Amino acid sequence: MKQVSLTFYPEGIRITVPAGTDLLTAALKAGLALSSSCGGKGVCGRCRVKIKTGDVESEPTGKISAEDRRTGIYLACRTLVRGDTEVEILPQTRVSFRPGVEIFRREEVTPEAKGCLFWLFPRHALTRKFVVPMGKLVAQRPGSDFGRIEYFLKEQGSGEISVNLATLRRLPMVLQQNRELVTVTVGERPGLTEVILVEPGDTSFSHYGVAVDVGTTTISACLVNLNTGQVLGTEMAFNRQVSYGEDVITRMMMAEKEAGLEQLHHAVVETINELIRSLTLGSRVNLTDITAVACSGNMTMMHLLLKINPSFLRREPYEPSTNNFPVIEAAEVGIRVNPSALLAAVGGVSSYVGGDITAGVLTLGLLNSSSLCMLLDIGTNGEMVLGNKDWLVCCSASAGPAFEGSGVQDGMRAIPGAIEEVRILSGPAGELVEVETIAGHPPIGICGSGYMSLLAALFEKGIIDRSGHFTEVSQRMVGRREERGYQVVAAEASGHGRPIVITQIDIENLLRAKAAIYAGMTSLVRHAGISFQDIDRIYIAGGFGSRINIRSAIKIGLLPDLPEERFQFVGNTSLQGAYWFLMSKSAREASREIINRMTPVELSLDPEYMEEYLRALFIPHTDLNLFPSVRK
Amino acid sequence: MKQVSLTFYPEGIRITVPAGTDLLTAALKAGLALSSSCGGKGVCGRCRVKIKTGDVESEPTGKISAEDRRTGIYLACRTLVRGDTEVEILPQTRVSFRPGVEIFRREEVTPEAKGCLFWLFPRHALTRKFVVPMGKLVAQRPGSDFGRIEYFLKEQGSGEISVNLATLRRLPMVLQQNRELVTVTVGERPGLTEVILVEPGDTSFSHYGVAVDVGTTTISACLVNLNTGQVLGTEMAFNRQVSYGEDVITRMMMAEKEAGLEQLHHAVVETINELIRSLTLGSRVNLTDITAVACSGNMTMMHLLLKINPSFLRREPYEPSTNNFPVIEAAEVGIRVNPSALLAAVGGVSSYVGGDITAGVLTLGLLNSSSLCMLLDIGTNGEMVLGNKDWLVCCSASAGPAFEGSGVQDGMRAIPGAIEEVRILSGPAGELVEVETIAGHPPIGICGSGYMSLLAALFEKGIIDRSGHFTEVSQRMVGRREERGYQVVAAEASGHGRPIVITQIDIENLLRAKAAIYAGMTSLVRHAGISFQDIDRIYIAGGFGSRINIRSAIKIGLLPDLPEERFQFVGNTSLQGAYWFLMSKSAREASREIINRMTPVELSLDPEYMEEYLRALFIPHTDLNLFPSVRK
Repeated sequence: MKQVSLTFYPEGIRITVPAGTDLLTAALKAGLALSSSCGGKGVCGRCRVKIKTGDVESEPTGKISAEDRRTGIYLACRTLVRGDTEVEILPQTRVSFRPGVEIFRREEVTPEAKGCLFWLFPRHALTRKFVVPMGKLVAQRPGSDFGRIEYFLKEQGSGEISVNLATLRRLPMVLQQNRELVTVTVGERPGLTEVILVEPGDTSFSHYGVAVDVGTTTISACLVNLNTGQVLGTEMAFNRQVSYGEDVITRMMMAEKEAGLEQLHHAVVETINELIRSLTLGSRVNLTDITAVACSGNMTMMHLLLKINPSFLRREPYEPSTNNFPVIEAAEVGIRVNPSALLAAVGGVSSYVGGDITAGVLTLGLLNSSSLCMLLDIGTNGEMVLGNKDWLVCCSASAGPAFEGSGVQDGMRAIPGAIEEVRILSGPAGELVEVETIAGHPPIGICGSGYMSLLAALFEKGIIDRSGHFTEVSQRMVGRREERGYQVVAAEASGHGRPIVITQIDIENLLRAKAAIYAGMTSLVRHAGISFQDIDRIYIAGGFGSRINIRSAIKIGLLPDLPEERFQFVGNTSLQGAYWFLMSKSAREASREIINRMTPVELSLDPEYMEEYLRALFIPHTDLNLFPSVRK
Repeated sequence: MKQVSLTFYPEGIRITVPAGTDLLTAALKAGLALSSSCGGKGVCGRCRVKIKTGDVESEPTGKISAEDRRTGIYLACRTLVRGDTEVEILPQTRVSFRPGVEIFRREEVTPEAKGCLFWLFPRHALTRKFVVPMGKLVAQRPGSDFGRIEYFLKEQGSGEISVNLATLRRLPMVLQQNRELVTVTVGERPGLTEVILVEPGDTSFSHYGVAVDVGTTTISACLVNLNTGQVLGTEMAFNRQVSYGEDVITRMMMAEKEAGLEQLHHAVVETINELIRSLTLGSRVNLTDITAVACSGNMTMMHLLLKINPSFLRREPYEPSTNNFPVIEAAEVGIRVNPSALLAAVGGVSSYVGGDITAGVLTLGLLNSSSLCMLLDIGTNGEMVLGNKDWLVCCSASAGPAFEGSGVQDGMRAIPGAIEEVRILSGPAGELVEVETIAGHPPIGICGSGYMSLLAALFEKGIIDRSGHFTEVSQRMVGRREERGYQVVAAEASGHGRPIVITQIDIENLLRAKAAIYAGMTSLVRHAGISFQDIDRIYIAGGFGSRINIRSAIKIGLLPDLPEERFQFVGNTSLQGAYWFLMSKSAREASREIINRMTPVELSLDPEYMEEYLRALFIPHTDLNLFPSVRK
């Protein structure tokens, strides 16, 4: 088959592929994730690329306008490469990151900084190494080689001890190499300690694990020295599943077919493998010295990682196959570390409140908190937990992807060039709109925090009313009918030469998202029989959270009207929780306790939720008494 | 390659093999085990066959005399087949059984007959089935599918519950078939209960297990209904390893090479598979309804079954890799039953006191016995246990294979045609020798019990003295030098037309064997600070044991001089113990307790053992006071 050369810009990454390969597949092969929510079916129209030079063949599609076509814009998934080609990935197509954002700062998890958590969760990693003086024990404990190992481990406080057959089979070979000293790696499974590895000599100093947050879009992993708890590095990559569909529902549907499940499983596993490989290269750690992997993520991601069909997650009674996942061998799912390494996944409460939330509750110490706290994780679903050491309730509100840049005309993810802050000033020639973009790039779209800021500003200036409708007072209104909207950035000031606009439909989508989240919080609070004022602290989790302007979020009625100091951004608590799950037996036990204790509130079964939702569709709310600071 | 036809007589089994195949290999392929202790190297000279017609090519060997050659006798291992051939397997070459011997009688293990043991070992099989009303539980226990199963099992009293990934992956498919009712099979592992299988609907009535005694020469298995404990059938077959060498040491040496370990492992596993297949065919049980396999055997057999290199068993400090074996999946070693079935093996105390002895102690209830008992298992090694509920000591005396028919000129296994009882009468023309053979066949050799009887008679008649030397008073003495001996059966009265003789060398070998066993028993008794008179009961285990004439054995000083009623034949206690191991959690726990409690006495380190041994080389012993009934 003819091979052709493909170069992707702006990186200049060149790869060779067989002629006839589509550009979406080719980009993935080059390690570049393109935006795509339909899984390459030509339906969503998001994987737009620009052909600079070359020979391609493309079906006509309504998703590409005649003007776009003139400038060389194509849908990557519908475009097959025929000869050597140069492709430019457009900024808004690119699934990429704000450079320099560190998800898991080194100091956050060193024993010094997390003193309180190491007190809550004493170190007792998923795998531990023991140096066993076999030679010395021969006289003390006649019997058998494994019997001596067992005796030694029991002396160190281990309970029931098991061993797998492969390890037992290798034991004679290991002892032939060194009959005096062996290093035994044990793994913790509920109820027992399993000997997973016996190595000749003392290898106890090389002892590593990996904690992974498996997100729908991105996967983050950190490499940990299991002897000290030190984080040696953190890396993030796109979940390769992104090219099969951006949201969880698309992937669930794909996974219901066996080949689809296999593909999605393979995609997530390979992403994790690449992250681990990169982390070990950066830290000069051998893959075989990694014997423990802890994962956290939503229920769908965990099912796909373990290759369990997730179909029941979206079918009555909307429940996962299991709340707690068994500790397995990492090799069973194809994770390439030591072949005997164990993999443990944080369990979740329900289909829509998964291990990522359990990990958040764990890492914030809510199980031991005497003050009343709320954890809020805003994404396509807004997942939230309320409670303290005595009780915990949680729910998931279906917000939709508006705050993530989907279903809104100029919406985009929080990547360089995205508007994240908007100020509307009164100028001599009407309003003056000032925008701040991520990384200071020329603006090319608006991300979630930008929309919050924009809505707050539009409302404050009276450009939209409490129901979100344009009041027709602004001279920046453009377009007609559905396209009618407020021009935030003029074509000449934008990064792509087109105006950036917020339409009436955008506003409706955004208000539905914020109403769903606020109504969810209200339901939880009502369920607990308290008021928002009783909450001592609201933790906002996730990479997205840290860019929210709290004041704007309160103004539009997304967050309750509480003093700003009660809100705290806590970063990626899913990854942090996976770290504790990896490092501490108490944390693993606590996670099971959290799942038992946390009561899920099913919003679709709550008659008052819909009423709350309808009231929250207004800015900030129908009941202004709930937002005294906004009323002023 | 040219194929030739081979027919084995007396069965008339015909197979086709490539020209150039040796007859030992070909016989195994035909399912016929030939005697061979050198593993087909042409050294032991035991695999003698007779070529009736055909075309073979054979190396000259000192093991076949000129006369043998004239009558068509060849060594099977050194003889290659060139054309269609008919082979007769000589009776003494044939490894076969006394027909009609039932190792494990049905009534021995029904709950009625073994009431006392079912009281000691309440029924709690290695795997259990539970019918879980999933539909009903959905409302009662929202959460997850596996969570409901877990809840149900905990209500039934299970402790820590785990599940393997394969079962979890199948769960959605099973529930798609039946969301109301599923049958859950759980397996017992130390410290936890593992869900190994979930099936749609109620399959609880089909619930079977297999207990196996893995002997060096023969393997016995019984099929058990795990719901009732009923034994549906028992079968026995030759351990296919026999063709690689008859004794344990030959196999250990072979197993030290990786290919050898693989071959021996495969041989034992295939023998077990055939037994299981045959048992299920006979009982119309499906292989997939077998979810539990329990095995018992000596340490070498257990290492080979699990494919663990046994090399340390015969090297300082002569210890096994492990005393207790992990519960594994039967499929891990290639046992063909349900792919999720578990396999558990009874652990042992030391290299030479293995799981077969633990099983014996278990099945005889020694752990709870207030009377003082001894268990004696006579084979190539004489393994023995002494004790009661307060203490247990054990040892293994290296007797050598004389009582099994090896190293003695006309020795043979206890198969049809073997002399098992000898009486010497005085007649007018000198002594008259009456023999009884197994199955009443014409005599072709002497088995262990026959030699005991013969030695006792020779001694009684003064034909040998207390040191075992011929006194030259008999007219039946034949041959010269090393071949000089006493003619038991004349050529014309034997089944093969040759005389059956016991030589001076034979007697020396037999006395060494009996001395080793008696000295071992003496050492145990001395170690415990008691005398033989204090022993309430001596259990004699093994198929061999039941043919021993107790009086003869005492006369020659193999067994201590106690009243006959203190001796009891107990059959195959290894298989019986495997049955309890399969059926009862208490039995599995008791077996671990036995291993912890039983103190092995190392005879080679015991300075008095050698002295005892030298004293016991006499008939019955140097100290006649120890044998008052013989002295009379």
